Amino acid sequence: MISGKTKVVAHLGYPTESFKAPMIYNPWFEKRGVDAVVVPMGVKSEDYRAFLPLVFRLSNVVGALVTMPHKVTTMELLDEASTTATVAGACNAVKRDASGRLVGDMFDGEGFVRGVLRKGRELRGAKALVVGSGGVGSAIAASLAKAGVARLGVFDAYAPMMDGLAGRLRAAYPTLDVAAGARDPAGYDVVVNATPLGMKEGDPLPMDVERIAPETFVGEVVMKTEITPFLAAARARGCAYQVGTDMLFEQIPAYLEFFGFGSTTADELRAVATISY
Amino acid sequence: MISGKTKVVAHLGYPTESFKAPMIYNPWFEKRGVDAVVVPMGVKSEDYRAFLPLVFRLSNVVGALVTMPHKVTTMELLDEASTTATVAGACNAVKRDASGRLVGDMFDGEGFVRGVLRKGRELRGAKALVVGSGGVGSAIAASLAKAGVARLGVFDAYAPMMDGLAGRLRAAYPTLDVAAGARDPAGYDVVVNATPLGMKEGDPLPMDVERIAPETFVGEVVMKTEITPFLAAARARGCAYQVGTDMLFEQIPAYLEFFGFGSTTADELRAVATISY
Repeated sequence: MISGKTKVVAHLGYPTESFKAPMIYNPWFEKRGVDAVVVPMGVKSEDYRAFLPLVFRLSNVVGALVTMPHKVTTMELLDEASTTATVAGACNAVKRDASGRLVGDMFDGEGFVRGVLRKGRELRGAKALVVGSGGVGSAIAASLAKAGVARLGVFDAYAPMMDGLAGRLRAAYPTLDVAAGARDPAGYDVVVNATPLGMKEGDPLPMDVERIAPETFVGEVVMKTEITPFLAAARARGCAYQVGTDMLFEQIPAYLEFFGFGSTTADELRAVATISY
Repeated sequence: MISGKTKVVAHLGYPTESFKAPMIYNPWFEKRGVDAVVVPMGVKSEDYRAFLPLVFRLSNVVGALVTMPHKVTTMELLDEASTTATVAGACNAVKRDASGRLVGDMFDGEGFVRGVLRKGRELRGAKALVVGSGGVGSAIAASLAKAGVARLGVFDAYAPMMDGLAGRLRAAYPTLDVAAGARDPAGYDVVVNATPLGMKEGDPLPMDVERIAPETFVGEVVMKTEITPFLAAARARGCAYQVGTDMLFEQIPAYLEFFGFGSTTADELRAVATISY
């Protein structure tokens, strides 16, 4: 029940109709007795630069979940961005720190990483390939770097985007072995499809699945169906895998910790959410 | 349950801790299956002029409930103010009209008027005295004028405020008999305490209760206790009366109609509200 004492988390994006976070966070807040609420606010691009600083001046707003189309723009409005956000080039979580500065982080990739770790795979020292250097691919690459992988392959058909990501990775993680330009999955411990391939019927697979070793862990970002053609092919080869929505649910505990609402697990969130996939 | 399709009513004021509207509106929305939510937003005065236009640019915000300290400032931010708001000099409800203009109204006094009417009293052609020409007194006077009283007495110890109200009443209602400067309740059909007297122990009564006729209807705005010393004295004389919270609950149906959420009654609202007085 919302009151004047309830802490508000602004969910900023446009359009709002497909927002999922309120149906995940709010039931959890209620279950745990946390007096907080996620409120969708449909901010258009032309208003965002003016709105973000003002919404943080509201006395009962403690944070913002940032989604499309504002994740990149948010970066220029922060007083401080985390390394992960800097490498991703985007931010999906903002809060005020104790001195009132706006600090931002990026948890899309953290969700991916937490999911992999929770499935018992080691990332420290591993070799990972991320195919697709757009928003979600950059975020996953940034979080894999933070998680301590030793070698990180990045690939995008659009070279400037791929090279930009590789450059930011090298700047932030000087000892990381960054390989840009190949999407051959052979030799990698973890491979990820971070392209939209799999959204539409008849899409080609994002990489040559025949060259994925059975012991390689395979991740997917497409959420259109739980088992995409890419995951089906990898599963047929015996690979362990992670579906797209795991990334979604696994990142929410990171958000909750960031905002100071305590900790939880993706399983608990899935159990209380009033949506499913 | 809030989703990205939920219509948001921004509840603008500062501080938010004592806000009551969410606990009245939101249970009613839920009961009626209206996909809308009242969300407190603690806007400070220095941010208000920038924030109000921006919050109305959010795609899912359909209106604003305005409370302290912004009711007066809101007037200068509207594209169009109702006559009631203009006379009151303040606005507590804002919406976008079909062409996107910001239009404002003032329902504090409407709540008072609806309460009186619902108790079976006639206001058209009546004589009413409002003691106190501050925010709430001005709002009640404005709504009594709109309701068609024939004579309206206004009084405030601070003459410029009283004279300002009298002037606005005369400008908007040229045939209304406006009498400023006396708080003698004799001869009035309706008398209202719209001063803060009764908030503190030992406060003097706002007018000479001995001169209130038993058939006069007596209204009160102080909500600190249900039966204030003023109401107790009037009741002892046999007067019918209206308590402060009646005004609060009676005005909400007016708000809901203004925002397009349908109609209800104060009784239904009291029944579902998760607060009581």
